[in-house]
Amino acid sequence: MKNHEIKFRDPLNKYSILIGKNTLKFLPKKIKLLCPGTKKIALIVDQNVPGRIKKLLNSKLKKYDKLFLSFNASEKFKSFKSVDFYLNKLLDKNFNRSDLVIAVGGGITGDTVGFVASIYKRGINFINIPTTLLAQVDSAVGGKTGVNSVHGKNLIGSFYQPRLVISDTIFLKSLPKKEIVCGYAEILKHSIIKDKSFFNWLKKNTQKILSIDLKVMAYAIKKSCEIKMYFVNKDVNEKGLRMSLNFGHTFAHAIEVKNNYSKKITHGEAVLSGMILAARLSHFKKICNSKILDEIEKIYKNNNLTYTYEKFSKSRSIEELIPFLKYDKKNNDDKINFILLKKIGQTTRPNKNKISSNELRKYSKIISQY
Amino acid sequence: MKNHEIKFRDPLNKYSILIGKNTLKFLPKKIKLLCPGTKKIALIVDQNVPGRIKKLLNSKLKKYDKLFLSFNASEKFKSFKSVDFYLNKLLDKNFNRSDLVIAVGGGITGDTVGFVASIYKRGINFINIPTTLLAQVDSAVGGKTGVNSVHGKNLIGSFYQPRLVISDTIFLKSLPKKEIVCGYAEILKHSIIKDKSFFNWLKKNTQKILSIDLKVMAYAIKKSCEIKMYFVNKDVNEKGLRMSLNFGHTFAHAIEVKNNYSKKITHGEAVLSGMILAARLSHFKKICNSKILDEIEKIYKNNNLTYTYEKFSKSRSIEELIPFLKYDKKNNDDKINFILLKKIGQTTRPNKNKISSNELRKYSKIISQY
Repeated sequence: MKNHEIKFRDPLNKYSILIGKNTLKFLPKKIKLLCPGTKKIALIVDQNVPGRIKKLLNSKLKKYDKLFLSFNASEKFKSFKSVDFYLNKLLDKNFNRSDLVIAVGGGITGDTVGFVASIYKRGINFINIPTTLLAQVDSAVGGKTGVNSVHGKNLIGSFYQPRLVISDTIFLKSLPKKEIVCGYAEILKHSIIKDKSFFNWLKKNTQKILSIDLKVMAYAIKKSCEIKMYFVNKDVNEKGLRMSLNFGHTFAHAIEVKNNYSKKITHGEAVLSGMILAARLSHFKKICNSKILDEIEKIYKNNNLTYTYEKFSKSRSIEELIPFLKYDKKNNDDKINFILLKKIGQTTRPNKNKISSNELRKYSKIISQY
Repeated sequence: MKNHEIKFRDPLNKYSILIGKNTLKFLPKKIKLLCPGTKKIALIVDQNVPGRIKKLLNSKLKKYDKLFLSFNASEKFKSFKSVDFYLNKLLDKNFNRSDLVIAVGGGITGDTVGFVASIYKRGINFINIPTTLLAQVDSAVGGKTGVNSVHGKNLIGSFYQPRLVISDTIFLKSLPKKEIVCGYAEILKHSIIKDKSFFNWLKKNTQKILSIDLKVMAYAIKKSCEIKMYFVNKDVNEKGLRMSLNFGHTFAHAIEVKNNYSKKITHGEAVLSGMILAARLSHFKKICNSKILDEIEKIYKNNNLTYTYEKFSKSRSIEELIPFLKYDKKNNDDKINFILLKKIGQTTRPNKNKISSNELRKYSKIISQY
């Protein structure tokens, strides 16, 4: 089976993403190449990662002085306190900047451990091994690290690039359907905002992704990473263009907050729902034509994904989301800053589509009747 | 009086340093220019900064929503706990990334507040107003931020550039002599490692610096910042060339650690002492000739600075420093990595001069007899 390696370069760093089945086996070679000064390796592993993976890593990294640390990966432990805990573990063992920290787990693990790595002696080498589809196509790409605060999610953090991301598709085999849908939502988003031909490919291959065909998935992950990196590299510190990645996420965020981040609605389901609402809004505002909207709705229908938005696309439900939509505080008005869709592969520019809650209230009825 | 403005650009940011008497008055204009999105400003001020400065800042920044926070600037409070405290203060007031954090104080304040700014929502605008000579010529330049841990100094931190540094020389007027010597040590170091003509200028102007002639100081600060930025820009993330800035600091660090960072020996005095030892070692190792060493010793003698090294240049004292010299852990031997001097304006490259503790023990006797 073909593996994919994507090499990136931002103004300060170069790093690569390795995607495919059993790509974990390349880890020792890559460490030698990318982090040649490594003597000690700290592996911070989501406690849900199977023991055999830890054994595998242990045997592959025989020649290094290893420190295995377990992480109870949950939003609660994605905290400043956890960061302090891991920093002290590294300090206790006198890790140098030229040593290495490896995260093994989903997005919560990667975000937390990446942040630890970024502030340990002002930055220690970091390798991310994402184990969920969502992390492989989204959170492990782009260098955002961070933890939550009592005030909200991801409020403390940094921009810090790993030396390497290994997205081994073998981890995906055992993921529950909900987790696959979660990652798929971001894959679909990437195609919608940037790449019409990838969108067309998804029309044919969504079922294969949802049923975990590893070969098809590897390609989808690769395309997703490339699209995300396109936006990130244009805008490393997130001032403008990167905002396109928020397509569907303004509504999704409101859905999640309104439901107190209940596990009943996953992030991916909220995003799938949010993209439909944003696409309908784009059509209603005459930013895209009905053919575009139809194409998007069709991919949901053909793959039994309409359940994700049915609950949230009723007139009353949309109205109920309004208080939870994020207002752009810079403008001191109550307008909501939406990324809308011009056509498959192209969104509006940020700050171009601000809609007040009163307008949105009017639209909600119409949108619900689509 | 002439003010100096130096503009810098690294691969990701541009920022400037404003140096001179009463340059604080330019703050409002600069905020408008460099941080145009600012609505709220948090001013984190060393508690030793006189009340009139706070009043001045308050009146100059009338149009902004201000949060004044006091900082008990000491190594003890340069901690992860303080960082957590200030992050929460900013979160409580819902600061955005486009708002602004200003540090007013010495190096401890700038390092701590800069670190807070670097991880608040992955980076909020930061302006540094250093109030000591040492901070103006050294710690406020180069983007190193950080706090201490129980394991040592500056072990947790980041590389983060402020939008602006304002080095108002008016702060220097009231500094005790010890503090001036502290800053002078780094000024002298910058001349020795990079700029022969600046070194010649210092030969004539050291007395004026030590007696706080603001006009002369402004020029010395400007030159120092330029030299430091030269090394930083060549090597933002500190992999090689930046190590030249460590000239004299290997010995200085050992002196400070051996004396438990006692206030009896300031950092500057340790650096002045360390530079003499490093220069003598350079001569003994035939890396520089005796004329170079004489020139350096002379600037100490002519300005009553020999007291800084007299205590530490005796054979026994040098031997006693050996256990406290920092070994380069990458090499797994006990060799010490010194930056030595070829001539005024040029050091050896890092990793070129490793000396074992046994060799150093032999040298200590000879060096002490210079």
